[in-house]
Amino acid sequence: MEKIVSLCKRRGFIFQSSEIYGGVEALWDYGPLGSLLKNNIKKEWLKRFVQEKENIVLIDGTVIMHPKIWEASGHLESFTDPLVECKSCHSRFRADHMESGNFVGQGKAKLKNQCVQCGGKEFTESKQFNLMFKTFLGPVEDEVHIVYLRPETAQSMFTNFDLVKDSMRLKVPFGIAQIGHCFRNEITTGNFIFRSREFDIAEIEYFVKPDEDEKWFDFWVKEWEKFFLDLGLKKENLRRYEHPKKALAHYSKRTIDIEYKFPFGWSELAGIANRTDFDLSQHSKFSGQDLSYFDPSASSGQAKEKYIPYVIEPTLGIERLLLALMCDAYKEVKGGRTETTNSTKEEEIVLGLNKKIAPIQVTVLPLVKNKENLVKKAKEIYQLLKPYFMVQYDEVGSIGRRYRRQDEIGTPFAITVDFETLEKDDVTLRDRDTMQQERVKIKELINILKEKLEN
Amino acid sequence: MEKIVSLCKRRGFIFQSSEIYGGVEALWDYGPLGSLLKNNIKKEWLKRFVQEKENIVLIDGTVIMHPKIWEASGHLESFTDPLVECKSCHSRFRADHMESGNFVGQGKAKLKNQCVQCGGKEFTESKQFNLMFKTFLGPVEDEVHIVYLRPETAQSMFTNFDLVKDSMRLKVPFGIAQIGHCFRNEITTGNFIFRSREFDIAEIEYFVKPDEDEKWFDFWVKEWEKFFLDLGLKKENLRRYEHPKKALAHYSKRTIDIEYKFPFGWSELAGIANRTDFDLSQHSKFSGQDLSYFDPSASSGQAKEKYIPYVIEPTLGIERLLLALMCDAYKEVKGGRTETTNSTKEEEIVLGLNKKIAPIQVTVLPLVKNKENLVKKAKEIYQLLKPYFMVQYDEVGSIGRRYRRQDEIGTPFAITVDFETLEKDDVTLRDRDTMQQERVKIKELINILKEKLEN
Repeated sequence: MEKIVSLCKRRGFIFQSSEIYGGVEALWDYGPLGSLLKNNIKKEWLKRFVQEKENIVLIDGTVIMHPKIWEASGHLESFTDPLVECKSCHSRFRADHMESGNFVGQGKAKLKNQCVQCGGKEFTESKQFNLMFKTFLGPVEDEVHIVYLRPETAQSMFTNFDLVKDSMRLKVPFGIAQIGHCFRNEITTGNFIFRSREFDIAEIEYFVKPDEDEKWFDFWVKEWEKFFLDLGLKKENLRRYEHPKKALAHYSKRTIDIEYKFPFGWSELAGIANRTDFDLSQHSKFSGQDLSYFDPSASSGQAKEKYIPYVIEPTLGIERLLLALMCDAYKEVKGGRTETTNSTKEEEIVLGLNKKIAPIQVTVLPLVKNKENLVKKAKEIYQLLKPYFMVQYDEVGSIGRRYRRQDEIGTPFAITVDFETLEKDDVTLRDRDTMQQERVKIKELINILKEKLEN
Repeated sequence: MEKIVSLCKRRGFIFQSSEIYGGVEALWDYGPLGSLLKNNIKKEWLKRFVQEKENIVLIDGTVIMHPKIWEASGHLESFTDPLVECKSCHSRFRADHMESGNFVGQGKAKLKNQCVQCGGKEFTESKQFNLMFKTFLGPVEDEVHIVYLRPETAQSMFTNFDLVKDSMRLKVPFGIAQIGHCFRNEITTGNFIFRSREFDIAEIEYFVKPDEDEKWFDFWVKEWEKFFLDLGLKKENLRRYEHPKKALAHYSKRTIDIEYKFPFGWSELAGIANRTDFDLSQHSKFSGQDLSYFDPSASSGQAKEKYIPYVIEPTLGIERLLLALMCDAYKEVKGGRTETTNSTKEEEIVLGLNKKIAPIQVTVLPLVKNKENLVKKAKEIYQLLKPYFMVQYDEVGSIGRRYRRQDEIGTPFAITVDFETLEKDDVTLRDRDTMQQERVKIKELINILKEKLEN
């Protein structure tokens, strides 16, 4: 894990937020490569679940919403963690983590009822603490003006249910999808970006006929798993965890987590919940609007069926998926890979990211940097490719060293411009994984790369 | 303007946040078409300013940062509006809007020192009100734990200056770009999405040698304008507004706004500021880290030059750009367009959005819906295109009516499947703007559409 964290910082994937000021715990900035990787994951998700599905539409809701929404959803009352305070140093901990003696949430292990900060053994009574950040809308800081930063994106899919359905003329079953920024005032944090106070959720609220909920639940568990496998996660690093009935959230009839085998252990990557008609019913009640659905498919003469749809909710954390993808793709090749002239035979890192999400798609390398012709030609090719791909130009260091630098950040293809290029207008195209090199005509480069990157 | 607002709601572009609860002022949810349009605008911006530029990298920073950042930046002290309160109804207003007698910000005009809510004429003394939303990090709500929601994205580009430069081995001049969600606790709001409490900013902090700042300032004013023109905004609806020296923000040496002629008047769409070395100097001072830059380009033997770079900041509001694009593209054709069999000759709306950003790229329409063969064929074509384009299938209503429905949301191409299709495997491809129709072979559709949409 430390190796991943170190790679992420060194190569511009992830930095601690406000690092020059000592950082803020559990807040992470995504650097040049991390932000591209994150965008690419989102793009793949949107392509698969919005563009390619027939009956799923996207929305993009606000972070601050009407406070009554959190009453209706049950968050004001139940979105809490039990909090205890160490009597000697005043550090705060989650009581449930204390009791299990397992500080997984902050990467501290098995301290049974002992403060991890000072070793103290006396704690205050456990108190419920709401994880929603609160702020005030408008200039007056009183109870009436309290609003919350959303801790999940689901609610705006429910409150917009009617507006979306009517404007898009949708018929059940249909889904509303969203990728949205969320905030949780976590007490215990840790495991790098795994438990952050800000994160992006990608989720779908899929509205179905009440008696078809179980069928669709199964459907979405499979769809979700398939997405992870297609992005490149190894099958053996994924498993399902079914929540026991008594531990289900207040809105859920059934929940399955999809867990990933992170370096710190099996942990939740995504989940699928059967939220029943809980949310639409609650919002009907609290808002006074009728959110039931009139089924238009009844044949004429027959009475139209009216019901409150059930909701199947597949959800995933974008940053957790990013971390899983990084961990899964991370390989160390002891003593270097054969091809390179690596005299010290140090360890080489290869990040075997799926080509569709790699932050840099192709790099252009002149064989040496002190030959003006080569450099000029390489820069021309770089300019040629830039409108089509995310390209990086690199002329610093030996060619082997530059290959390794790109392997480390997962760049699938490297183009080398050598003396033959100047004569024959072709280049060497190297594949990150096979390390095979082929000669390709410059004028065919764009099409060949498009082909290779899309398949 | 009301026509745009109505179109946006009716066709699923933009809804008021929390509408079923009566809404929250100045917070807007983007519906199925609005969220796609917003994503497409971001995609075009990223392509042009990150992918296609040689020396600009992206980051994605947190909303909540170390509170000291806002001391260093001057926001804690200066990011305020003067606030007055009506003594009779306690409504609150910006004093500067009162004095100018011009409530442009909330769409109310020229009420000279009179409350727009109750007509009252007595107000409290003006008081500075900070527009940053504040909240508490961790469970204790005291001064020490106050943090702020960022009102702009710039600061994380400054605090990450060193980490980004080193991890990406960048040399001045270079830029750090970001599209980020921001929050402002506006006192006066209004003009639809123009002044919202949540919005996305797309901006670049471009670091240059101190004596090259003016050259780069001019460069970025032109680049920004070109982007707007290329996206389709009409030249006559754009103008520059240079801030007078005495009205400059505390960090700025020079600022030019790019204004758009919105239906409610010329207003700021984007801006370019010369922030000098203010921000990096302040963060050096407040964090104790040396953020100066060692210029490696000095020839050997020569002393390397060390300086704090100047910053040119081009910035734009994504939602304001979206609104400008909607306004600019909105056309009404009185009495209908010739082609359709529009017996009542009602007004037709055409949204002439640039093809690259239109939320739906192509629609597939069976000529009639009661012929099984036609419907089947149309659905096949819909499935064929879906992996490549954002496609909508529509079979409801007359063909003329369906064309109009797509014109209204700016869909550039419509494919009609008719009886000839069944015999000849070709379809009608209709262009939104010219209304011209051509016969295209089904097997050539993907390539032809790709070509047309990219150029």
